[in-house]
Amino acid sequence: MLSKNQIKLITSLKQKKYRLQHGLFVVEGVKTIKELLQSSLNLHALYTVETFNIDAKEEVIVSNSDLKRISFLKTPNKAVAIFKIPKSKVIAESGLIIAIDDVRDPGNLGTIIRLCDWFGINDLVCSKETVDCYNPKVIQATMGSITRVNISYVDLVEFLNNSSLTTFGAFMEGENVYKTGLPTKGVIILGNEANGVSQEVEALINKKISIPRFGNLQDAESLNVATATAILLSEFKRR
Amino acid sequence: MLSKNQIKLITSLKQKKYRLQHGLFVVEGVKTIKELLQSSLNLHALYTVETFNIDAKEEVIVSNSDLKRISFLKTPNKAVAIFKIPKSKVIAESGLIIAIDDVRDPGNLGTIIRLCDWFGINDLVCSKETVDCYNPKVIQATMGSITRVNISYVDLVEFLNNSSLTTFGAFMEGENVYKTGLPTKGVIILGNEANGVSQEVEALINKKISIPRFGNLQDAESLNVATATAILLSEFKRR
Repeated sequence: MLSKNQIKLITSLKQKKYRLQHGLFVVEGVKTIKELLQSSLNLHALYTVETFNIDAKEEVIVSNSDLKRISFLKTPNKAVAIFKIPKSKVIAESGLIIAIDDVRDPGNLGTIIRLCDWFGINDLVCSKETVDCYNPKVIQATMGSITRVNISYVDLVEFLNNSSLTTFGAFMEGENVYKTGLPTKGVIILGNEANGVSQEVEALINKKISIPRFGNLQDAESLNVATATAILLSEFKRR
Repeated sequence: MLSKNQIKLITSLKQKKYRLQHGLFVVEGVKTIKELLQSSLNLHALYTVETFNIDAKEEVIVSNSDLKRISFLKTPNKAVAIFKIPKSKVIAESGLIIAIDDVRDPGNLGTIIRLCDWFGINDLVCSKETVDCYNPKVIQATMGSITRVNISYVDLVEFLNNSSLTTFGAFMEGENVYKTGLPTKGVIILGNEANGVSQEVEALINKKISIPRFGNLQDAESLNVATATAILLSEFKRR
């Protein structure tokens, strides 16, 4: 049986504040846990109703009712794992980098991380106000990709000021991305779901690009930030 | 004050069964409601804490506590609108059509509807097992696009059998979409989140296409169905 203190620690990890304080985050779902166990991440504890048959002293077999107590899901899976938050590596100023300016929706961030993984983007740079990538909903949406993308939370204005790379920003009004020359190196910046790229960041963008709309002009107001990322990455990478 | 019967009717619309039975669906969020009021949809009732200043006998001013009773959201917005489900129009066998085979996640369907709108796709054809497009979570994710795309629920095998259009299917193994000739007419088929395109539908596909992975080979297992739709539509439309 889990102790009150254990339960308290685990459930506290729903909040960013306690994730940072303890340096830990929660992963649910047997498939994702197995994938993360094979990654470079360090396991802190694995609470499961059935053994994973791994040689790990961190594994604790728990009852279904204990699992229910610690799970963040309405319908708990078979296991809850706690991993140590890894240190961000130095951002490599080579190839393409995705930078996001205050993306707030966990599903969007998770999808963007998964896209970075698919398109071989090593570095994802997030403004400080961007949703925490160790938020359980983000982790779920990444489908395991979180271990393969180096995610850094930075002062975006400072980062762009110090970077020697060309900066591209996704805007409603910009050069048609299908007709623009796109390099193999650079930073692609995407903005907040409601407000787009902030003014301070906009001032540091070398080239504004946009995805043309093919529907009637008065119609669709914008693309979701994750689908815009998908289309831009596809355009930069296919050439 | 709302009557028990009114509340019962509205809350029943969370379920597909009752949406079909009553021919009604719920929309929340002032912005989306306003957009839908200007569309061809017919309003059944509008429950709101502040008047919309529209000339509609369907508007009913309610208290915040009444709104809370009928809202599907944890933090209710300022209004709940009920619209009549429109009849699907005949599927036009011209241009591009998106067909989806058992997409289950409401957010994914909503994003796909929004993408259809952006890329000027008039017809979205869904298999019967696809999540209902009048599901409140779908409506929210469409950002008003639902009124501008003709959505039909059909027996997908029958539809494809009777269609004269070339059929393209998104697969993990298929022709590289960046190197394939793509016509301006055709059906693009996307499958279920976990299982992809079903065998019966696969048998009716003329050309399998795939989005190449640029990351390391052993890595990212697949793209989310909505981001795959984004990239395929971008490829079909940009040429």
